[in-house]
Amino acid sequence: MLEQFETLIEEKNYVALKTQLNDMHPQDIALLLDEVAGNDEREALILFRLLTKENAAEAFVEASSDTQEYLINAFSDAELKSVFDEMFLDDTVDIIEEMPATVVKRIINQSDSETRKLINQILKYPKDSAGSVMTVEYISLKKQWTVRQCFDCIRKQALDKETIYNCYVTDETRKLIGVVSVKTLLLNNYDTVIENIMETDVISADTYADQEYVASLLSKYDLTAVPIVDQENRIVGIITIDDAIDVIEEEATEDIAKMAAIRPSDKPYLEQSVWQIWLNRVPWLLVLMVSATFTGLIINTYESKLAAISTVLFACVPMLMDTGGNAGSQASVTVIRSLAIGDLVPRDVFKVLWKELRVSILLGLVLAIACFAKLQLIDRLLFRFEGYDVITSAVVSLALFITIVLAKFVGAILPLFAKKIKLDPAVVASPFITTIVDALSLIIYCTISIAILS
Amino acid sequence: MLEQFETLIEEKNYVALKTQLNDMHPQDIALLLDEVAGNDEREALILFRLLTKENAAEAFVEASSDTQEYLINAFSDAELKSVFDEMFLDDTVDIIEEMPATVVKRIINQSDSETRKLINQILKYPKDSAGSVMTVEYISLKKQWTVRQCFDCIRKQALDKETIYNCYVTDETRKLIGVVSVKTLLLNNYDTVIENIMETDVISADTYADQEYVASLLSKYDLTAVPIVDQENRIVGIITIDDAIDVIEEEATEDIAKMAAIRPSDKPYLEQSVWQIWLNRVPWLLVLMVSATFTGLIINTYESKLAAISTVLFACVPMLMDTGGNAGSQASVTVIRSLAIGDLVPRDVFKVLWKELRVSILLGLVLAIACFAKLQLIDRLLFRFEGYDVITSAVVSLALFITIVLAKFVGAILPLFAKKIKLDPAVVASPFITTIVDALSLIIYCTISIAILS
Repeated sequence: MLEQFETLIEEKNYVALKTQLNDMHPQDIALLLDEVAGNDEREALILFRLLTKENAAEAFVEASSDTQEYLINAFSDAELKSVFDEMFLDDTVDIIEEMPATVVKRIINQSDSETRKLINQILKYPKDSAGSVMTVEYISLKKQWTVRQCFDCIRKQALDKETIYNCYVTDETRKLIGVVSVKTLLLNNYDTVIENIMETDVISADTYADQEYVASLLSKYDLTAVPIVDQENRIVGIITIDDAIDVIEEEATEDIAKMAAIRPSDKPYLEQSVWQIWLNRVPWLLVLMVSATFTGLIINTYESKLAAISTVLFACVPMLMDTGGNAGSQASVTVIRSLAIGDLVPRDVFKVLWKELRVSILLGLVLAIACFAKLQLIDRLLFRFEGYDVITSAVVSLALFITIVLAKFVGAILPLFAKKIKLDPAVVASPFITTIVDALSLIIYCTISIAILS
Repeated sequence: MLEQFETLIEEKNYVALKTQLNDMHPQDIALLLDEVAGNDEREALILFRLLTKENAAEAFVEASSDTQEYLINAFSDAELKSVFDEMFLDDTVDIIEEMPATVVKRIINQSDSETRKLINQILKYPKDSAGSVMTVEYISLKKQWTVRQCFDCIRKQALDKETIYNCYVTDETRKLIGVVSVKTLLLNNYDTVIENIMETDVISADTYADQEYVASLLSKYDLTAVPIVDQENRIVGIITIDDAIDVIEEEATEDIAKMAAIRPSDKPYLEQSVWQIWLNRVPWLLVLMVSATFTGLIINTYESKLAAISTVLFACVPMLMDTGGNAGSQASVTVIRSLAIGDLVPRDVFKVLWKELRVSILLGLVLAIACFAKLQLIDRLLFRFEGYDVITSAVVSLALFITIVLAKFVGAILPLFAKKIKLDPAVVASPFITTIVDALSLIIYCTISIAILS
């Protein structure tokens, strides 16, 4: 498809280009612009200028920030104004947050004073707060209006609003006193006063609430929008379901990154520079490498004693540590995700430990038996390695059993403890737990080996 | 709050109970029912019987499947019918899929023949397909109708439909030919014929499409519903945004589980039995333990040669393997998540490898230097361990550098390769990659040590 468009550009067949482009969905146009801009930015500009006003704004919002930055720099002032006037304010703010200062200045200069005031206000809210992601275009109604008056008002304002299906009822001081859906309006008589049909128990969130909390409200109560209010309960914006989906996806991505010992980034992978990726990965790798010193210390301490007993004891260390690490991260990842989606709360700690204890004993038994069988059948009989006698194999299997039970315990309790003391459970995740489990399992292994075998 | 309700139940103060309960949101009622049922199931039934018809159905849908099962068994036939009649069909089907056969039979028996037919039809779609999660209650319009006729139709049907804001236009053969939003209807004159204002380029999905694909459509195109069509493009249902959010959360949970070597489950953690959890965790633990045999084999092979060179070489093995594992899973998890949310496609493989190569060299340099410093300053000077001379420390650091570069390469390329051959990238995730990286890094370490130091 890309080639087809490039042929049309070369042929300067702008009529066909214009028709084909504007027939596409804005999201697909944005993908195409990103692709084209990757090869030749000027071609992206040519394509962009063929878009209708509405498609131009929507495609611009969906494009990557690299494409956006190039286009803004290439725009005339009039073009810039026309694109940004067509956009919703929350999208404008999103773009501003990604752009370098000079570009931001140009955008702000092209906005009218009212928009500028609103932009500055939203920019003041902390990153990831409800205020920073909300949209300020919503339908607001008065409680004494009839359904007919409401529909008149909605008809007049609908074009500029992101969603019209939830309308917010405010009193004289702009305080939020109710919500009414277009569905309810349609189900009622034209002369009904909305005070009598509105829902007064409104689920709302504070401007400083975490965006993740707002997304969880939308998800839990199956809402399509949540009103955002200031400290005096005056409505200042709404967060719509499409933004909530983005938040839910972002938060899952962040948690996954943290579990893999990466500092999360809100940019897509291919758009991050090598330096950014490096910076997000190096701190944890360093911390974890240094903390692995403990395992080295333990081995140094026990080395001569172990070597004196049997030469095969060291060969089982990687298997023991890997299995302990895997067992621990199974538990920790399950608990972290359950906490994130609200299936678990810290006070469930005893339920979790009781469950993990039983699971870990079952798992430990199966793995210890399998390990014993493997050592006896594969290492001793098949490969004929020396030193894998029955007692040594049994000691290794016993150490494995204890390691698994311990790993599950540590893996389950650390995230719950982190949540309890208001730390992010995902940060105490797998790699960190692996280090603890490694050290513990090594100590147990060495102690048991020396106690039984020497 | 729980105690407060239990006091009211003991006092048999049903008037206060009824008011307080019905003032709550159905989702919160459901949480309360689950809590109460955990202590005394009969109390949950008492509370449930105080709910209004609408609250009863909504709270029932949101309750845990254990509570649902208990309630269904406790219901009279009339109660059962009244609750299920009030529910949307997609929720009915969800519940049926979780219940044992005897309970399903009772539910089906209480349904009228039309509903029964629809239930059976939906149950025939494969698990996780669009057909199995769609709702069949939607607004359907005819193309020759005016806006006024549409509103009349919507007003008449709105009460029983899950969403009314997207209306689907069909021809005489029920084929989907367009979509029109209530917003568009409100923005147009009452006499406009909808054929002239409907969007004809409808984004729809097949009944057999994967639910994850449908959720990604809703997310990508910022839709609130997607029509589901059969092979003849006849509309048979819709999937709404609230279901899409559940799908997105479930899929993220599944991917996270797979990355931690757990077979995913669609039940919340606390609702899974010990046996289920055990069954989901034991296969990968076993596979990974046996595959760790390779690392054991490698150590067995090199053991005597390494021991002859220096006693400290073994002490560095855990640090080397842990760091390699962490570096590899940083890369693999980033690539897996980027593939899942559509930021990457398999043909980006060279972009990814080029990026990871540069990142891994930078990371490798920093970590190798840090490792050298740690061995010299901490292990040699601080702890005065013997054997950490400059050359040995340099060899360990060199092996670490190569391990990191290799780990990043393996971690980045395996998920892309899996995706390319239509396997699930999350399955070839961290623990599996750790095993490969462990084996590779050990071979490199032993080879380099022997080549340089002996």
